[in-house]
Amino acid sequence: MGEFDLIRDFFAQQQLSRQDVVLGIGDDAAILDVHPGAELITTSDLLVEGVHFPQSTSAYDVGYKSLAVNLSDMAAMGAEPAWFLLSISLPEASESWLRNFCEGLFSLASECTVQLVGGDTVRGPLAVGVTMMGWAPQSQAIRRSGARPGDGVYVTGVLGDAGLALAGIQNEVWLPQDIQMLLLITLNRPVPRVQEGIKLRGLATSAIDISDGLVSDLGHICAESNVGAEVELSLIPLSESYMEFAMPVFGYDKAVSHGDDYELCFTVPEEKEVQFTGLYKEFSVPVTRIGAITEVRDIRWIQEDGNRATFSKGHDHFPDE
Amino acid sequence: MGEFDLIRDFFAQQQLSRQDVVLGIGDDAAILDVHPGAELITTSDLLVEGVHFPQSTSAYDVGYKSLAVNLSDMAAMGAEPAWFLLSISLPEASESWLRNFCEGLFSLASECTVQLVGGDTVRGPLAVGVTMMGWAPQSQAIRRSGARPGDGVYVTGVLGDAGLALAGIQNEVWLPQDIQMLLLITLNRPVPRVQEGIKLRGLATSAIDISDGLVSDLGHICAESNVGAEVELSLIPLSESYMEFAMPVFGYDKAVSHGDDYELCFTVPEEKEVQFTGLYKEFSVPVTRIGAITEVRDIRWIQEDGNRATFSKGHDHFPDE
Repeated sequence: MGEFDLIRDFFAQQQLSRQDVVLGIGDDAAILDVHPGAELITTSDLLVEGVHFPQSTSAYDVGYKSLAVNLSDMAAMGAEPAWFLLSISLPEASESWLRNFCEGLFSLASECTVQLVGGDTVRGPLAVGVTMMGWAPQSQAIRRSGARPGDGVYVTGVLGDAGLALAGIQNEVWLPQDIQMLLLITLNRPVPRVQEGIKLRGLATSAIDISDGLVSDLGHICAESNVGAEVELSLIPLSESYMEFAMPVFGYDKAVSHGDDYELCFTVPEEKEVQFTGLYKEFSVPVTRIGAITEVRDIRWIQEDGNRATFSKGHDHFPDE
Repeated sequence: MGEFDLIRDFFAQQQLSRQDVVLGIGDDAAILDVHPGAELITTSDLLVEGVHFPQSTSAYDVGYKSLAVNLSDMAAMGAEPAWFLLSISLPEASESWLRNFCEGLFSLASECTVQLVGGDTVRGPLAVGVTMMGWAPQSQAIRRSGARPGDGVYVTGVLGDAGLALAGIQNEVWLPQDIQMLLLITLNRPVPRVQEGIKLRGLATSAIDISDGLVSDLGHICAESNVGAEVELSLIPLSESYMEFAMPVFGYDKAVSHGDDYELCFTVPEEKEVQFTGLYKEFSVPVTRIGAITEVRDIRWIQEDGNRATFSKGHDHFPDE
């Protein structure tokens, strides 16, 4: 059995078998049944070793995260993810590496009911590309461009823990070992907010996932919507670890500039905010209102003393779209 | 303007704007309108420098070929390609490289009316991943698994020129410079047989594109269909260059074992072969009947003297699916 067959066997192991997969792995292409009246939503992300994850990252976490970041994009559209293609470049066909990679990949895939339907395996430097496909009811996908002045600005979860984890790895800050371990899980296994995204359909006027940091990503919403925003820094949700270890060293910087949190940032129109407050209490993740959309096309970060703060954008050179 | 904006601007330059693209590049994901009653067909290929193309390959050809190999997979399904996502890993954001890459990519994309709707750009070793999406009418996509004993085995175009071109580059064979130049174009700019694939719907019982060589690829059809085949070597279509420069050195080897030709191999049932002979004369590429499907699960390569020949499979270690 050649290396190729070995690898194909690994990827054929996913237990999940969706009804709408007419033909999965093994032909020139996959054949899929699309929901009538639905729009197809699709996105692609490429993760390269040494750029998107440190060389020390476990195979399990590489598998998990390469799927998670794409599911996060689907969440930001309010889309229901269904199928994915995997393109992987590997320096060698290590059986134990592949087993662990598949475990990470398929554990999250099964949790989100998304099926691997094809892809490509090649020899080369370690890189993982995932293309995710799914659907949303006609005209209900949530774009970046719908925010209007007066809308509330919300985020899910807490921000900055991924940035703090990386600062710990890179010895920019001292962290107790147990805290470092927990933060690493946050960094490597972000939880895509798929169910939350779906519930935001018809409510949120815009949404984005926070991959490059709130400064950049809220900036994208504002640019695409031709609006600005005012954010109260004291309202930004932070973990206890962040408050204790990051705040004294970095202030709000890791929370708003770093990214990699894969939480959602979205806007809700004023007249729907009461209805929304009732709804989000049922979310499996906390939701926090951090500010509002303004007509002035500028993002103002307001400190507790009422003065404005400024932050640099996250990694702006070769970031994800 | 950052490197990222520069690159995004390049990829936003495609002139083509399909009606079924509801939202293209620039959001978390693309939104696409799927044809009612159609099935979604999708495939993904990853090309790595030094593995799938020599380092000397021009940016134009890298752009062209990364799209062509995916269009070829769609052709082998009888699918109509519509949209694609591009994930590209680049060591640096060279403006001239990107301009040439986009020229190669978009010239073929426009010819085949496929629109770039998203993707990802990252810094890393040169690698290009394309995911292609398209559609076929319900139950009409052509699989590898439908070949039946008695079916005629056909190929489009000529085989072996890509293998001969590479042998020339690698100094395995001497070629006159003008011939080497022409063969290089064949190697770097394969013509995906999209229109031919669409015309084969309802006629061909199985189809595959010849990426790994006829031995491997006809082997896939036979394995998936639980059949064998008998092929007359003397019927395999070869170019004049192949006859003159490859045949004396390699015999039929480069024509059946090398691959990279991206022609179609397909099967047509006996009772439809007369109808098909009338049809394929209108194809823009020659079509040749090279043998027939057999019940015996083995591929027999028949020489002119009636004896059997044996060939090694193409590159079997880390090939494309």
